[in-house]
Amino acid sequence: MKRVINFNAGPAAIPMEVLQRAQEEMLDWNGTGMSVMEVSHRSKEYEAMHNEAQDLFRTLAGMGPEWKILFLTGGASSQFFMIPMNYLFGERKATYLVTGHWSKAAIKEAKRFGPLDVITTENPDGTFTRIPKQGEIKIDPASTYVHITSNNTIFGSQWHYWPDVGKVPLVCDMSSDIFSRPFPADKFSFIYAGAQKNLGPSGVTVVAIREDFYNLAQEQAKLSTMLSYRTYAENNSLYNTPPCFSIYILNLTLKWLLNTIGGLDNMVKINSEKARILYSAIDASDGFYRGPVEKDSRSQMNVVFRLKTPEMEETFVKEAKAAGIVGVKGHRSTGGIRFSIYNANLVESAKTAAGFMEEFSRKYR
Amino acid sequence: MKRVINFNAGPAAIPMEVLQRAQEEMLDWNGTGMSVMEVSHRSKEYEAMHNEAQDLFRTLAGMGPEWKILFLTGGASSQFFMIPMNYLFGERKATYLVTGHWSKAAIKEAKRFGPLDVITTENPDGTFTRIPKQGEIKIDPASTYVHITSNNTIFGSQWHYWPDVGKVPLVCDMSSDIFSRPFPADKFSFIYAGAQKNLGPSGVTVVAIREDFYNLAQEQAKLSTMLSYRTYAENNSLYNTPPCFSIYILNLTLKWLLNTIGGLDNMVKINSEKARILYSAIDASDGFYRGPVEKDSRSQMNVVFRLKTPEMEETFVKEAKAAGIVGVKGHRSTGGIRFSIYNANLVESAKTAAGFMEEFSRKYR
Repeated sequence: MKRVINFNAGPAAIPMEVLQRAQEEMLDWNGTGMSVMEVSHRSKEYEAMHNEAQDLFRTLAGMGPEWKILFLTGGASSQFFMIPMNYLFGERKATYLVTGHWSKAAIKEAKRFGPLDVITTENPDGTFTRIPKQGEIKIDPASTYVHITSNNTIFGSQWHYWPDVGKVPLVCDMSSDIFSRPFPADKFSFIYAGAQKNLGPSGVTVVAIREDFYNLAQEQAKLSTMLSYRTYAENNSLYNTPPCFSIYILNLTLKWLLNTIGGLDNMVKINSEKARILYSAIDASDGFYRGPVEKDSRSQMNVVFRLKTPEMEETFVKEAKAAGIVGVKGHRSTGGIRFSIYNANLVESAKTAAGFMEEFSRKYR
Repeated sequence: MKRVINFNAGPAAIPMEVLQRAQEEMLDWNGTGMSVMEVSHRSKEYEAMHNEAQDLFRTLAGMGPEWKILFLTGGASSQFFMIPMNYLFGERKATYLVTGHWSKAAIKEAKRFGPLDVITTENPDGTFTRIPKQGEIKIDPASTYVHITSNNTIFGSQWHYWPDVGKVPLVCDMSSDIFSRPFPADKFSFIYAGAQKNLGPSGVTVVAIREDFYNLAQEQAKLSTMLSYRTYAENNSLYNTPPCFSIYILNLTLKWLLNTIGGLDNMVKINSEKARILYSAIDASDGFYRGPVEKDSRSQMNVVFRLKTPEMEETFVKEAKAAGIVGVKGHRSTGGIRFSIYNANLVESAKTAAGFMEEFSRKYR
């Protein structure tokens, strides 16, 4: 068995310990004589694991019991419409801060439901290379919520401060950097994340809603049952069969983060070190590698850079793969190179990758 | 490692060979050096597996290229609203044949979208004990579709003929008996199934739409992107990240069904034999066990029966568990006992269970 250095943008690397545990328990989970995939979602064994995953999430996020932790499906892409469907009705309006591809996608869905104020850092050529400064952010206090995307997977930028939005509830798509660093839960009213970057595999989306904001959601009777947050909250995300195996891997991943890594304070140190190593390799390359993102907006999760030509980038991807480093091709919409260094990636892998970059630049300079 | 006889109603038993294969490949799938959970859904390796699962589905169902095979999330419960959202608009109406709990749930969602004709076999006490006869089924030819539930998991009944609905497209929820027996695909226009009974684990729902009916679906622009069947069909169910691991287990389960079992003609023989063994145990018990469903409507997937008292049923569940037979408690809404004997259950398990029933009845008669 060989394992590679996995820089995929999502689905992405999962901690080795988590995979090994899943492997061991595949035929007999928790003494049940069944795989976790074969157990009833109404059994006490399943429900204990399901609830534990919620508790682990609350603990890591520093969230109290006033936060509802829900397990949904359909990816963050489904939250793009579910949030406005549940919150943007009647005379309400919302504000969207647009910093990349996914926040634009969120707007496309939201504008079907109500009026939006939009603050964007989009460049004239359609790219995004920075996060807005606080001074650029004027929020209408009449907004029902402000939506931001904490990390921009495709363009490789990330919020390094949390914007002051006054008393307006802050809704955050944290899909690609959740639990990569500590964050002040009380700044937010609603946080969501597709699991397939830092939380586990695809197939489950975690939605955390603070009680005061939950109370503003649309009545259940006005929506299709499966599209109302109230259905999930009132039934502990067990109204119908949840994606049990994805939640199980989520549970194991959160345990790894809490117990093996030691929580978010340790995680951010590891992540900063990986990012430092790779951005240093870019900055020390004397222009051979170019990072398009402004330095104070650089993502610690997705290190994005360009080479001189698309052909050279293609060679880079090929030789990286031969060196056991995979998933480095930039998003099809932007081209370039992207190293996604989510939580499960090791500092050692960043060092190996930086070594590869140096060698490659010597060879092709 | 002990394995139990798993009669759970869903999530349910998965073939041993499938679990063993998933276990072997957990750290290195298909020579990628990654788990299938860690691989990009845009990689050629993932896409080949994803497409193969669609092809296997088509082959088993006897469906040609005129059928679109889609992978969705949110369970069959989400199809309850997606079908009318995509098909019931303007002046359209639909017909629902109601034979149990889940077809009632489907109606609850559908009636938000348009007028329905309803044909039901509900008893005055709210139970269901039979499938309607052809003579009871009058379909308005102006209906856009007719919806049926092929097998009723909770009440333990099943369609043993396919109703003649004239030229009206037939939509079928096959969640709990898909691929348990051959069926004439050309009778149907739309088939859907949550995977967690006969197809694999929870987390993925397969939707098969025949082209002529697909063409009647609502325009994509009129719906939220993730709620339009067109989004899935036009992007090969890869518009956003699909539930990769669930699709992988689905793929392995379909391969097992085709290659190890030898297809649906063999599968139905095995399933009929299991059902025969268990219903014989009921009928031979001289009233100790009572099956509420009319004999010609009995399900070959969910064998439902009652004992004299709820206390006796509780003892039955307890002693069955001690004998290594789990998941036999009836649905919370009905009580009683239910043996769910989906495809992955062996004839041997049915024999063991029948032996247990006989012994139990001797002990407590």
